[in-house]
Amino acid sequence: MRRRSHWAWGYANEEPSRAEITAAAELMSAVTGFELDGTIEEPVPAEAVRLPPPRVAPPALPFCTTEPHERIAHTYGQAYRDLVRAFRGRFDDPPDVVARPGDEHDLIRVLEWAENSRVAVIPYGGGTSVVGGVEPRGLGPTVSLDLGRLGRVLEVDEVSRAARIQAGMLGPGIDRHLGAHGLTLRHFPQSYELSTLGGWIATRAGGHFATLTTRIDDLVESVRAITPRGVWESRRLPGSGAGVSPDRMLLGSEGALGVITEAWVRVRPRPDHRASAAVRFPSFYRGAEAVRAISQAGLYPSNCRLLDAAEARLTSGGDGTSALLMLGFESADHPVGAWMDRGLELARAHGGTWDEVRTAGGGQGAAWKDAFLRMPYLRNAYPAIGLVAETFETAVTWDRFPAFHAAVTGAVRDALGGAGIVTCRFAFTYPDGPAPYFTVLAPARRGDELAQWDGIKRAASEAVLAAGGTITHHHAVGRDHRPWYDRQRPDPFAAALRAAKHAVDPAGILNPGVLVPVSA
Amino acid sequence: MRRRSHWAWGYANEEPSRAEITAAAELMSAVTGFELDGTIEEPVPAEAVRLPPPRVAPPALPFCTTEPHERIAHTYGQAYRDLVRAFRGRFDDPPDVVARPGDEHDLIRVLEWAENSRVAVIPYGGGTSVVGGVEPRGLGPTVSLDLGRLGRVLEVDEVSRAARIQAGMLGPGIDRHLGAHGLTLRHFPQSYELSTLGGWIATRAGGHFATLTTRIDDLVESVRAITPRGVWESRRLPGSGAGVSPDRMLLGSEGALGVITEAWVRVRPRPDHRASAAVRFPSFYRGAEAVRAISQAGLYPSNCRLLDAAEARLTSGGDGTSALLMLGFESADHPVGAWMDRGLELARAHGGTWDEVRTAGGGQGAAWKDAFLRMPYLRNAYPAIGLVAETFETAVTWDRFPAFHAAVTGAVRDALGGAGIVTCRFAFTYPDGPAPYFTVLAPARRGDELAQWDGIKRAASEAVLAAGGTITHHHAVGRDHRPWYDRQRPDPFAAALRAAKHAVDPAGILNPGVLVPVSA
Repeated sequence: MRRRSHWAWGYANEEPSRAEITAAAELMSAVTGFELDGTIEEPVPAEAVRLPPPRVAPPALPFCTTEPHERIAHTYGQAYRDLVRAFRGRFDDPPDVVARPGDEHDLIRVLEWAENSRVAVIPYGGGTSVVGGVEPRGLGPTVSLDLGRLGRVLEVDEVSRAARIQAGMLGPGIDRHLGAHGLTLRHFPQSYELSTLGGWIATRAGGHFATLTTRIDDLVESVRAITPRGVWESRRLPGSGAGVSPDRMLLGSEGALGVITEAWVRVRPRPDHRASAAVRFPSFYRGAEAVRAISQAGLYPSNCRLLDAAEARLTSGGDGTSALLMLGFESADHPVGAWMDRGLELARAHGGTWDEVRTAGGGQGAAWKDAFLRMPYLRNAYPAIGLVAETFETAVTWDRFPAFHAAVTGAVRDALGGAGIVTCRFAFTYPDGPAPYFTVLAPARRGDELAQWDGIKRAASEAVLAAGGTITHHHAVGRDHRPWYDRQRPDPFAAALRAAKHAVDPAGILNPGVLVPVSA
Repeated sequence: MRRRSHWAWGYANEEPSRAEITAAAELMSAVTGFELDGTIEEPVPAEAVRLPPPRVAPPALPFCTTEPHERIAHTYGQAYRDLVRAFRGRFDDPPDVVARPGDEHDLIRVLEWAENSRVAVIPYGGGTSVVGGVEPRGLGPTVSLDLGRLGRVLEVDEVSRAARIQAGMLGPGIDRHLGAHGLTLRHFPQSYELSTLGGWIATRAGGHFATLTTRIDDLVESVRAITPRGVWESRRLPGSGAGVSPDRMLLGSEGALGVITEAWVRVRPRPDHRASAAVRFPSFYRGAEAVRAISQAGLYPSNCRLLDAAEARLTSGGDGTSALLMLGFESADHPVGAWMDRGLELARAHGGTWDEVRTAGGGQGAAWKDAFLRMPYLRNAYPAIGLVAETFETAVTWDRFPAFHAAVTGAVRDALGGAGIVTCRFAFTYPDGPAPYFTVLAPARRGDELAQWDGIKRAASEAVLAAGGTITHHHAVGRDHRPWYDRQRPDPFAAALRAAKHAVDPAGILNPGVLVPVSA
């Protein structure tokens, strides 16, 4: 098992070197125009971290430990505020115990121990939550239940195109295994490298494709979870209308209803027909109109990702004058020329221009995808060089989009007080609206980054809610989004969910504080 | 308000004449080969029906009544067993009161009265349940809460392509209103003419299209429902990942969690590009392989409905030697030639042959759709001429399909004891499996039809469950499917749903007995 860095995105041997951090400072100064202070701060090494002692003795099980490195590694997710705290060696609220069950039998013994000992259980997949979903913030004694050893593909059904996969398997492992059958899950969230199938299901993750089945919700055939009151496992079916969907109640349950251990998911052959183009638009809103037309045309592009001019400059080599649409089609079955032709016709009708259509892999779209998956590595340098970063994402209907975008961008700019930038792209598009994704960058007030981040987050979240968006489209609720989530969800639904949780988790041990209040 | 027939599908002035019934007897003899007994039985007129007296005094509200015609009209859904009982004048378990609220304020007063008086409330849309969903079977005092007066389109958003529609609006009214904007909901269940938006959402209805967004689940943007503990209304959003979906908990709730009063739904322009063909296959299983290939190719046909040879003969003028695939594509945006060409290539590769491709409306597919929507009218004749009919539907993954089909068909044939036929078609197809729909016809044992039907239903349901299917894909659970549903759904989920219901409906007044047991 490769060891993860105790503070940075990635493995321990991938932590950025001083030279890489200096290069990142120069790059970010150039693309943002910020005057960074030139200081390169050093991370606090794991050995220097002082942890509070465990508040509970671990169960006498060989896969449970209170070893400090393990507790440190399971304290945080991968939000910017997690990165900063870990970088500075601040691990005030670590889990007391880390458990790595090798099978469901092991897992059930941990749940029994936790219920009897009144210990909170936080299911931990790849630990990539950016919303405080795996952090024992303010909880009592806690065990982090790491699913990493449940990491195998159990069955592949090539006829129905589906696979049964354990919840703790990481993205690259899934794809490697399926690739041997010529198949892919085709689910590429930005956390792909370090996140797991179970985590995707628990948080309703979104892949990097732009339309149709890009949400894990739609890729799930059935789910198996262990609750303190037994096994919650649905039948494996292509579709069912037998009452409320048991799967849809686990999707987005964020570890509060049960510990997901495996799922049947839909897979597909790897595509061998492709077409892509990078289309420039005179403005973000003109580009948005093109995206609306394309997403309402029934063409279902694999990529339809619009970047505003500043975001295109930051991530895709744009010159800062044009919005950029990455438009792509792909198929494992048929050439996609007819699809691309019509997509480009619609783009042209809204002022789009492009240089070439590529029909092989690669191109600007592929370069963008690579950069997208490398982004967390670049971010590792931010605490050292003095940058604050926040990304937030939402969804809103088309009729509200321009006013929404203006209001949210304005509110964040006000919070930044002139020192920082906010950019926007579409993470997904639906026929009835886009899922905008905002990136905020600002020079850090050294040592005060968390308060700075909190101010940005609060302003953004208030604006999103006021202008009709959702507090999260695919990052989940966790602990960071709770105040706004609580205002967004219907009250009777909240009462129903609380009661549902109590029915399967009467002691309230499962990930207390996410979705529903910590029970008394 | 047009008056519905007290026993037949349709309105009172559409009940079949003696001449139509005689013609139906001749037609059904010819297509089934059954020797019917030649008797034409007469329905018991509404005036001759003797109802038990109401067990509760209605609330002093002008829209509540105990008038016998209203109680009769709200006693049953539209299952074959409902048709037979109504035809024979058997209304043993009618609701005691019928309420027709004109707005949510009225509706809340009915719920308050019912909770205080411990009266069961059955939300009633168009009364087209085929699973006992609206029938007060074995309940105590009951009010049938007819949503028919909540029947308006409240808003149309042409930019996002969505509309806010009241729950009690019938299919044709919805399409008429949206048609004035050049739009359609494009949701055509077989009950379309007499069923409502609220009913579709409560039962997770399926439209007659074959792929992609044909389930009402996927057409819903947000739902508003009244529970005894307040308003359950989600934000209108194109997508959200904020925890467990509140909408997905109402979808399929069958009136047990709340009374749906309105919803935002996704609409689309009416298509003006079409291509369709009727493709013959040497066998149903060869046709199924073609459908699998087409549904896994990412082409998303609007129609991809495979009929076995007997079903093709019954409903579509087939000669009984070939399975028949109705393959169709449609678009409001672009010509669909490239899509159709590839679909037919795949059909040919699996032994399919066809005479012509039609690019205008009409054709065999359109004829099939008309026949599909007329089918309930033909069925009106069955009690009179002595036919038993049952239709059941399910879904199963492709790897299991041939064995599943053989087992289910065999079990139903055994139950029929040689006197009857069973046919199969695909109601929908998913990339990972079909949703097969079975039709059973047999000569009736006059007066004993219900026991005969029960035997067929039991055999079919047992076989469906044993062979890996779902007890229902789009007909819902209601009261008829409960025994098999209870074996299918995970136990912890059932406990969670029961608790969720209790949280919003502590007195247990909402449609007692569907999904969860009647509370003590």
